Parts: sequence; C-alpha cells; structure tokens
Amino acid sequence: MPCYSYAVDHSRRIGLLRRRLTRAGLTGLLVTHLPDLRYLSGFTGSSAALAVTRRAARLFTDGRYTTQAAEEVKAAQVQIVASSPAVAAVQWLAAQAGVTSAGFDATHVTVAELARWKQALPFKLRKAFLTELAAPLVEPLRNVKDEDELALISKAALTGCELFEHMLGFIRPGLRETEVAAELEYQARLKGAEGMSFETIVASGARSALPHGRATSARLPRRGFLTLDFGIILGGYCSDMTRTVYLGKPGTNERDTYQAVLEAQEAGVAAVGPNVRCGEVDEAARSVLRKVGLAEAFSHSTGHGVGLEIHESPRIGAGQTARLLTGMVVTIEPGVYLAGQFGIRIEDMVAVTRSGGQVLTPAPKALIEL
Amino acid sequence: MPCYSYAVDHSRRIGLLRRRLTRAGLTGLLVTHLPDLRYLSGFTGSSAALAVTRRAARLFTDGRYTTQAAEEVKAAQVQIVASSPAVAAVQWLAAQAGVTSAGFDATHVTVAELARWKQALPFKLRKAFLTELAAPLVEPLRNVKDEDELALISKAALTGCELFEHMLGFIRPGLRETEVAAELEYQARLKGAEGMSFETIVASGARSALPHGRATSARLPRRGFLTLDFGIILGGYCSDMTRTVYLGKPGTNERDTYQAVLEAQEAGVAAVGPNVRCGEVDEAARSVLRKVGLAEAFSHSTGHGVGLEIHESPRIGAGQTARLLTGMVVTIEPGVYLAGQFGIRIEDMVAVTRSGGQVLTPAPKALIEL
Repeated sequence: MPCYSYAVDHSRRIGLLRRRLTRAGLTGLLVTHLPDLRYLSGFTGSSAALAVTRRAARLFTDGRYTTQAAEEVKAAQVQIVASSPAVAAVQWLAAQAGVTSAGFDATHVTVAELARWKQALPFKLRKAFLTELAAPLVEPLRNVKDEDELALISKAALTGCELFEHMLGFIRPGLRETEVAAELEYQARLKGAEGMSFETIVASGARSALPHGRATSARLPRRGFLTLDFGIILGGYCSDMTRTVYLGKPGTNERDTYQAVLEAQEAGVAAVGPNVRCGEVDEAARSVLRKVGLAEAFSHSTGHGVGLEIHESPRIGAGQTARLLTGMVVTIEPGVYLAGQFGIRIEDMVAVTRSGGQVLTPAPKALIEL
Repeated sequence: MPCYSYAVDHSRRIGLLRRRLTRAGLTGLLVTHLPDLRYLSGFTGSSAALAVTRRAARLFTDGRYTTQAAEEVKAAQVQIVASSPAVAAVQWLAAQAGVTSAGFDATHVTVAELARWKQALPFKLRKAFLTELAAPLVEPLRNVKDEDELALISKAALTGCELFEHMLGFIRPGLRETEVAAELEYQARLKGAEGMSFETIVASGARSALPHGRATSARLPRRGFLTLDFGIILGGYCSDMTRTVYLGKPGTNERDTYQAVLEAQEAGVAAVGPNVRCGEVDEAARSVLRKVGLAEAFSHSTGHGVGLEIHESPRIGAGQTARLLTGMVVTIEPGVYLAGQFGIRIEDMVAVTRSGGQVLTPAPKALIEL
C-alpha cells in the first residue's frame, strides 16, 4: 500500500548495501529476489531487477509497471525494457565503467537464469563477470528491522491478535474449517490487510496433528483441539501467530500436553535476547518437551525470522550457531503432534530488544475452552 | 482439499513421465518444483522432493508431513527425512542400481541448491551424475489437462463468474478497493475456494491504468473504470478472469476504447484452436488494437496457460512459435492502459478443444455501467 511507503528512506538502505558491496570487494550487484528489491527500492511489482554499482542504482522492469515504478521508485533510476529485466540489468552492469564484476545471490537465481545471463554477455565476460556471493548481502540488512519496519510489523501482529479475539466469538462446533478461514480472512481485509502471509491453517480434531493442516471442508467437532495459524500482510510486512483452543472439555492428557507446549513456548520466548545463539533458543523450548517424553512429537524447528517474507533468516533450529541481533523479529512456535489423536502449537512473534525479547502478539495463551 | 484427490491416477502420470524419461535417455529424475510434485504424487505440502527411476518412485519429505504424506501419496513410496528432502533424494538416486544419471529442471533449481546436491554426492559422481534437462519433462504433461482436471478448472472458472455476478450487486462509489477485495475473497471462501490464485486486483479510476493494481485503501469514484482481476483455487487448480466495469456514465472515448479492447479479446478467443501457434493468437488480438492506434497502450502479452499454477506454459505472446494442443487451458486478456487516465482489460479462460476454443468464463463482457 503506497500510503506506508513514503516514510522509507531507500537511499539510506542502498547506501548501507554499497558499504557491504565494497567490503565484499565487488563493484556491482544484481538483485532479482523480489522482497530484496522491494526493501531496497520500494518497488512492489512482480517482475524487475535492480543493478547497483558504487555510484548508481537502476531498476529494470517491463511495460506493465511503467506508471507504478515511477510512483514507487525514488532511490533508483527506472528503465522500462521489452525483454527480460534481469538480462537488461546484467548487460547494463557490464557496460558501466569501473564495474568489473557483478555479484548475485545463488540462493535466489536458478541454474537456467544464470545460463541465460551469461549468454547475454560479451564472450570475454562470460566466465568471470558474474560472481556468486559468498554470503547474501541484502538479507542481513533486511533481518534487522528499523523503527518504521518494527512499527508496521507490530501493527500487523496486534491486528492478528484482534482477529484471534474476534474468532473466539465466532468459532462453534459444526462450522466448516473453510468457514472459519473465510471469516478470519474477511475480517483481516476489513482491518486493512493487503492479504494473508500464507495459506490460513485451520486444523480441528485429529487434523490438528497436521502441522500444516490448511482449512478443509471438515466440520469442527463438539470436542477436540482447534489450531489456528495465520498471518496478515500490512504495508508489505507479514504477521504470524498460532493459538490452539479446545472445543468442549479437555481430558487430563490433553490438558497436560497443552501445558507442556505452553511451558516450552514460554521458555523459548524467555531465551530470546541479543547475542543469543539461535540453537540455544531452540534448545530452551525443546528441552521442556524432552523432559516430559514429547521430544519426538515436536517434529519441526522452534521458529524463524519474519518481515517482508513470512520465512526469513534466522532459523531458530537445533544446533544453529547464528546469533540474534537487536531489531530482529522471530517466531517462537513449538508444537506437539500425535498422529491420529491431536496436535497443539502455540506461536508468538518476538522482537529482539537490547535487553531481551518483546512479544508482539500478546493474545492469551492459557488454554481456552469454547 | 483431499475430497478432490481420490479420483486422480497418479500412477498413470508417473508412467507417462517414465516414457519421456526413457526417450530423453535418462535413468533417473529429480522433481523439486512443488506443482510438479503435486501433479505426479498428490502431495500438497511445502517441502519435498520426488525421485523417479525407470522402476521406482520415492517421495522425500520432513517430519511435519508424516501423516499428510501417508494420506496423500499412493503412487510413490514415502520417506521422512531429518535434513533436506532434495539432498536425500539425490543420494537415494545415486545409490540405485542402474541409475547412471539424474535429470533436473534448471528453471526450478537454484545455483545454490545444485552446488549443495553435488557436494552431497560421492566425489566421482559430482561432475556428471546430475544432468540438466534439455527441456522440461513434467510441465508438458501438466499443460495438457485430462478430463478430471478440466472439470475442476471449469468449476473454478464458473465459480469465478458467480463471484463476479455477486460483486455487480455489491460495488458502489465510495467503497474502498480493499473492501471490494474483502467481499470478493469472503464469498470465494464460502463457495469452497481454498484460497485466491493471486493477489486480487481491484483498480479504480486512474489506478485502472496499472495493469497489476492491487487493492488499496482508495475509494471507488462516482465516475470511472473499475478493473477486477481475480482467481480462486479449487482442488489445487487456479481460475483467472478479468472484467472492467464503469461507475457512472462513460464518455465517447471511454466507450470506444472499451469496444476496441472487447473486439481484440474476442478476436483472440476466436483464434484459439489446436495446432495454432501462440504468436498467431497474440497477433489476432494485438492487430485489432494496432488498427485503432492502441498498440503501444497494450503493454503485455495476450495470455498464458493456467492450471496448478496461475502462470504456466504456453505464453501467448508476440512471436511465440509453440503450438496450442487440445486440452490446454489458456487466458486471453488484452488490455489498454493510458497512464493518468484509465485502463481496461478483459480476460477469459479458454480450453483448447478438438474444434477450437471453449470459453470457461461465460460472464458478460458488454460494457456494464453501475
């Protein structure tokens, strides 16, 4: 939504990127991953490439985006091309004085694209001009959110909490999972969401044991768990939260298992802080479940970064040695899945602050019976 | 939605793929593109790899999908792995007797992934075992839809038409574009959609000149065009349609321009048929706009294939020599965009039949004034 974009200082971001570029010994960079492009230039279209040198920045896109690119992109020159924007960007970089190489991010470029770019270069440049980056240059910038980004992410996260509260009054046995998703997504739109961050997960009864159980035509049971995992997009930024509620009266085993997941989740949140290794946060949550014999039932990692993309670095998983930095936003979402019986997951978004972690999704986590 | 999947004969699809594999002189294939995976195996999760040899087919996924993969995948063995499914698939292929090479689709594999796969192979296999496919093997199968697929796509397309009809009664000046999108998406969910095929485009007034104008907080004007471009997902298959209506009374220029786009669109639809080159269909639409001096204002190609993905082969663009085949489903969507003034686009989905083309989106196309 353009109304959010005016405040963003893209020139500053490109300046920070240039410093990294110089430090990496590169004279040019080709950016094709759309969230990276949006972060650096403000462009929100679906087809573009950004070429950055130590002196210039130029965004290439096609004729569908002539008007939109002119409106959105201020910190880079815009060039409309009839063929592939990335090929045009590669050729432009090769033609710039002083640009002897162009870095690219191998995690976002396909084997076929790279072959095509090389083919478009003069023969003598094909072998060495395009340089695989040793480490991503834009992603580390994106992982640490500035104040404007934190404000947007917070707003998205709080809107998610409001939606959850609304849903507590809507959910009842007999509804179809798709009807629950429909209501949630409709209310999200009314609250200004540009869309959902991912396909809404509504998993009821035994389906709650599917960690990625998207809404189906199944009806909510009179008795059983219901997992809601959803996120909205606001100003391009994703929210992400999960709550598991109980329809009817839970049994002792269900109640105890819920309590274990909650304790694991709270231990994970408490472990968040600057300079903490991601693996330590994972272990804080995982060890709680291990102690009660549920380690096997927790079959995924504890969390992930979130921002312009729903899944960003860092990954909060076992053995991850990367350290959290102030300004990162991560999810903490342990779960327990017992096939054929039930599943439980609880997830918050947590911002890393100077002194620890701040939960951005303060919706209730004690077991709710509906 | 699992309720649609029981009818699909995945073994037959894998059999057809094996024939192509043999013809390409390959003994193994690695499939990592998720829509290809879903097409071949029925698996709908977000992380998996499928290894196919002349004798076996094995799907690798992670612990989040244990239950789901067991439910969905019948035509391949399932193996749950703790690390990367694709790496496990590569290693499994390399260990199979008689498998001397594994083809992969360079358009869907990143430079970083390929490097990682090679690294995971025994040293002597690193250079030659993984083989870039000369042409995609799965996509051509997917492009030609079978009867079950056509039934699903038709249903999705007709549901889109019902939604458009509903929206005609809802749209009025003063509503926000996001409110229009909210209502559309809510009704889509109530009609059973698993989600939208892409971010809904609601572009009103001068914003209609943005070919990809996603819904914003802008209010619908008393007078001006409104473009709705949307699609739903049903049983995994995408629909895609565009209609442009007028709020208030259009002027002569607006009416004439609309008429030109409509004639171009109808000429494109009329050109669809088996064995026709895609470039000819594009030219049929484009030449109508060229004759009235609007060639420049039609800044994109005429259409694209649609199925499990919203954008599939073939591309209906200028100079495309690929030929349409019976069973393909394509969009025909010329548009005219006059920056600062207005834009108009009209889009149908058309199935290629033995005798020509069958429009799957029979919603009215004459200019509607609201």
